[in-house]
Amino acid sequence: MADLAASERGRFITFEGGEGAGKSTQIRVLAAALEQAGKAVCLTREPGGSDGAEQIRELLVTGDPDRWDAMTELLLLYAARRDHVRRLIEPALEKGTWVLCDRFADSTMAYQGYGHGLDRGKIAALHKIVLGDLKPDLTIILDLNPEAGLARTRVSDEAARRGAEDRFERMKLAFHQRMREGFREIADGEPDRVALVDAAGDAESVSLMIATLVNSRLGAL
Amino acid sequence: MADLAASERGRFITFEGGEGAGKSTQIRVLAAALEQAGKAVCLTREPGGSDGAEQIRELLVTGDPDRWDAMTELLLLYAARRDHVRRLIEPALEKGTWVLCDRFADSTMAYQGYGHGLDRGKIAALHKIVLGDLKPDLTIILDLNPEAGLARTRVSDEAARRGAEDRFERMKLAFHQRMREGFREIADGEPDRVALVDAAGDAESVSLMIATLVNSRLGAL
Repeated sequence: MADLAASERGRFITFEGGEGAGKSTQIRVLAAALEQAGKAVCLTREPGGSDGAEQIRELLVTGDPDRWDAMTELLLLYAARRDHVRRLIEPALEKGTWVLCDRFADSTMAYQGYGHGLDRGKIAALHKIVLGDLKPDLTIILDLNPEAGLARTRVSDEAARRGAEDRFERMKLAFHQRMREGFREIADGEPDRVALVDAAGDAESVSLMIATLVNSRLGAL
Repeated sequence: MADLAASERGRFITFEGGEGAGKSTQIRVLAAALEQAGKAVCLTREPGGSDGAEQIRELLVTGDPDRWDAMTELLLLYAARRDHVRRLIEPALEKGTWVLCDRFADSTMAYQGYGHGLDRGKIAALHKIVLGDLKPDLTIILDLNPEAGLARTRVSDEAARRGAEDRFERMKLAFHQRMREGFREIADGEPDRVALVDAAGDAESVSLMIATLVNSRLGAL
């Protein structure tokens, strides 16, 4: 029985949403709840998550905001994602570990596609070339008005967000609004995989909504 | 008249071939001949050629040979290529400069496709996504038996090829043979763009063949 349980494939859950929506908090709360329920859990994030992907991340998050055009950025993101999937995500899932990832492919579609206006068909075609049919088992989009989200990032943890890594965060409000619309369209288009969670309330009530969702979709808690 | 001549688009010539085929020598000889004939010439190389692409190149040429899988490598190469084309190649061509590039997309098809066995349809699809219909005006493939080519690299300029940058050169002979076959198939498939030049002779006679070719195809010399 123990062997059978150990050989069951883990589940892949991704968290998406704009800045300040609470992804890093909520992903930690869910990880703790899943561990409490006896699951092996791996917490990771994009861009990055494997040695190679973290090195590519450095090229993406440092330097001038215009350092790369949207297409070059897309290719670097997918290079990092490919490495992350091969080196960390797939091996973990195969061992039966549940993988919780802070941002994944939907962020790319929302940022580079809806935000920067890169052809969304090309982004989808690239995903297919690089990762075939790999998709998360469940994607939780924390939905929040960008004005509220950006105000939250300005008051919380300034130190961790300052300096070299603030490239993605210097984007303008209009961009964040397009991105939010993108996430909502993604959720509308794939209701079986993607759930939109209202992130405007306090962290505890959002955590409760997520736990309920994970339990009803994946029967984990 | 000077203004008209200045506004004519430059030509884009790429040099391809295995290690030791003499690309870097021949590209310099052709550059000098074109300058002699009054052309503005820009010499560049891949992976690299622009600031961003050179930084991506560092990720490709250093470290363990198994650091990246073929697909991740493909994505990094195309990220570098996109940056190189946008920042250097296209602006130069628009100014009327002739761009001579040491390796370009055909090397990727030969290395990652024919050499590493990555799906060639996927490589072609990626090229289309990233660069649309951009192709060189002329591609010169220096064709040489890989055993002869690898022997040449072992006796020439060891210092420049040693150490951190030798990742691509530690590949095995069988790989180089598949790559050579790949280059020959590419030449067969696109005779209007691609010319195969026998690189087994001395450098001077190869230079003469290339000059004749550039003159007959592009009327430059």
